[in-house]
Amino acid sequence: MSATETEYLTQLGQRAKAASFILANLTAKQKTALLTTIADHLTLHKNEILQANAQDVAAAKQNGLTDAMVDRLMLDEGRLGGIIADIDNVISLADPIGKDAESRILDNGLRLTRRSVPLGVVGVIYEARPNVTVDIAVLALKTGNAVILRGGKETLTSNKVLSEVIREALTSLDLPKDAVQLIDSPDRSLVSGLLRLDKYVDMIIPRGGQHLQRLCAEQSSIPVILGGIGICHLYVDKQADLMRAIEVIANAKVQRPTVCNALDTLLVHQDVAADFIPNIASHLHSLGVRFHACVNSFHYLEGLGFDVTPAHDESFSTEWLSLTLGIKVVNNIDEAVGHIRQYSTGHSEAILTDNINTASEFMNQVDSAAVYVNASTRFTDGSQFGLGAEVAVSTQKLHARGPMGLDALTTYKWLAWGDYTSRQ
Amino acid sequence: MSATETEYLTQLGQRAKAASFILANLTAKQKTALLTTIADHLTLHKNEILQANAQDVAAAKQNGLTDAMVDRLMLDEGRLGGIIADIDNVISLADPIGKDAESRILDNGLRLTRRSVPLGVVGVIYEARPNVTVDIAVLALKTGNAVILRGGKETLTSNKVLSEVIREALTSLDLPKDAVQLIDSPDRSLVSGLLRLDKYVDMIIPRGGQHLQRLCAEQSSIPVILGGIGICHLYVDKQADLMRAIEVIANAKVQRPTVCNALDTLLVHQDVAADFIPNIASHLHSLGVRFHACVNSFHYLEGLGFDVTPAHDESFSTEWLSLTLGIKVVNNIDEAVGHIRQYSTGHSEAILTDNINTASEFMNQVDSAAVYVNASTRFTDGSQFGLGAEVAVSTQKLHARGPMGLDALTTYKWLAWGDYTSRQ
Repeated sequence: MSATETEYLTQLGQRAKAASFILANLTAKQKTALLTTIADHLTLHKNEILQANAQDVAAAKQNGLTDAMVDRLMLDEGRLGGIIADIDNVISLADPIGKDAESRILDNGLRLTRRSVPLGVVGVIYEARPNVTVDIAVLALKTGNAVILRGGKETLTSNKVLSEVIREALTSLDLPKDAVQLIDSPDRSLVSGLLRLDKYVDMIIPRGGQHLQRLCAEQSSIPVILGGIGICHLYVDKQADLMRAIEVIANAKVQRPTVCNALDTLLVHQDVAADFIPNIASHLHSLGVRFHACVNSFHYLEGLGFDVTPAHDESFSTEWLSLTLGIKVVNNIDEAVGHIRQYSTGHSEAILTDNINTASEFMNQVDSAAVYVNASTRFTDGSQFGLGAEVAVSTQKLHARGPMGLDALTTYKWLAWGDYTSRQ
Repeated sequence: MSATETEYLTQLGQRAKAASFILANLTAKQKTALLTTIADHLTLHKNEILQANAQDVAAAKQNGLTDAMVDRLMLDEGRLGGIIADIDNVISLADPIGKDAESRILDNGLRLTRRSVPLGVVGVIYEARPNVTVDIAVLALKTGNAVILRGGKETLTSNKVLSEVIREALTSLDLPKDAVQLIDSPDRSLVSGLLRLDKYVDMIIPRGGQHLQRLCAEQSSIPVILGGIGICHLYVDKQADLMRAIEVIANAKVQRPTVCNALDTLLVHQDVAADFIPNIASHLHSLGVRFHACVNSFHYLEGLGFDVTPAHDESFSTEWLSLTLGIKVVNNIDEAVGHIRQYSTGHSEAILTDNINTASEFMNQVDSAAVYVNASTRFTDGSQFGLGAEVAVSTQKLHARGPMGLDALTTYKWLAWGDYTSRQ
């Protein structure tokens, strides 16, 4: 990183930290007023935002981005309206800041409490989705945090306008505009630099693929919330209701195949494999699913007109994010659990069984953020879990695991009152 | 790191992970039996342990370690008895594993719960204190975690015997001995290697000085709990009771000057500085305290026979761990808060004031793990806070902040039961 870049990031960090001290002590009412003003300003500057986004879309097409990618970064009146409407949803959530827990009088005479407070400064690195710019800024402000945003370079023009509108809303209320800052250069070394700003940044949330997650885990000196990568498994036990299983598996695989909680690998108990595998494959095939089958399941599937490939090792270590499904026959629940322990990213796993002991065993032995009995893996989601908002889905174990609501953007401090009290 | 070292650490990690799955599902009764057996085995092998420790002590003396360091690594019958007695204390704590929170029926029909579970594998890097070997192993096992220990090289002989005795206790109960493993080579590159074992290790706790903390923050791809470094401040407001202040400040500074919650910098409001600074200095001087004084406080202190040095910038960024105290005059609370924000390590800060508004302001503006009104900083401690045990004192904001009890060695997983339920 050049000296200029270091200086740029240091200033960004210092300004964010300074702003965070002001944000930390806003009342819920002030934060509501702020979010309302942001929604108003976004509405006011709708045309400007859509024009900036049109430039990103045109450049993306020119640069040969896939239709799917262009679609993800595209805003229109409807989508922008949805983004603005979502702010109302965040406004309606309870403010998680300033709550006291574990309040008590200690034996040493102090009155102690553990108060929820904002983290301070949150750094978020994300892909080319302009909705995330607004979404994350709003969640950070709602919880009294300052935020440093680093979005995908393909949406830099949109993000610049969106963040400027939000900053203008802050200024209009005499709040520090540096509560929301965008890294406005596409230079990749700025990501590495951001990951070392531990003097100013309290948490890094990478919202992106495996490469970004790995980069953050390896390079960051700031605590990182890894997540959003799901190699998800569903195990069909020999005592599952095989008729009802079909719909659940189809739901897990095809309802929205491009997301992290979609099913990647189906594990089937050997005792029911011969009957069940052709049945489920037939149903999934009709929905457009392709298969990577282990030796045993390939045997049940070949020659039936399905799109089936013999599985290689990578078949089971791939998050498909598409209509491909790995299938593997296992001897028993131990082998199913062993496979999951080896290949899972710790996101979501499910078992289908009518046997209560088998269900308990699966829940106890599988070490993932969300473990389901007789349900689709697709439920791992802040909104489905009733958290109101979703900051990210954590697949690591510290601080927050699984869908992260507003609480995940808070920490606590211990406050103690004495009467000129000394320790004995 | 050599290929042999990589292989050594990988096997250590794999064995720890395998053991952790068994540990995770022990009942509280089984864990109590385990800890009791460990205490018994330590008593049984007392002589062996003391002999091994005597070798470490002899080598330490030969290698010219300071008396203080030799004292810290030395075990005798009394100290070993204390370590064993502490196990009873841990046994008596409630088991934090298996507790359900936020249990409810979701709108989508699932029954959801958030269950506390062990982290899995914890890596602990610590200095030459053999008591930590037992202490951390016991806390990890109590919470169903496997642990990889890396102690100071000066106690390697003691640690080998201690960990072998604990492993023997595990084996005697048919539990996996690899729940407790010691890195049994002093090679420093093994520390760096441990910090990259993210495939197997879920959390790193460095219990040691600033250099170790920094190394872990920069090199670890595993979440790290930084802590135990305290540049602690106490601010004497103009409305403090200046008589009663003296005892609290003396307590914060001299009761145990070598620990992280001892006072490092005294900030004094300018309106009371001329009277108070000579008074407090006189009392502290009688207790052996030396001073690093800012220009203004130096002016009040010089020529009175105290041991006083003009402060330089490092005076305020040093954790003294000794009978030295920085003193600075500030214009008002804002300057006090500003100084703390600049120099604090986020551990413990205190204000002395009889003004409720000033007290609130200090609590709201200071962003440290523990903030005190009219009390000594020395209270930041798991036992003083009533946590029963202290894993470490975290100065970072994610997962755990301040004194960490058993809960800090747990995470949670989301469990959901459906009736072959699909997402709409």
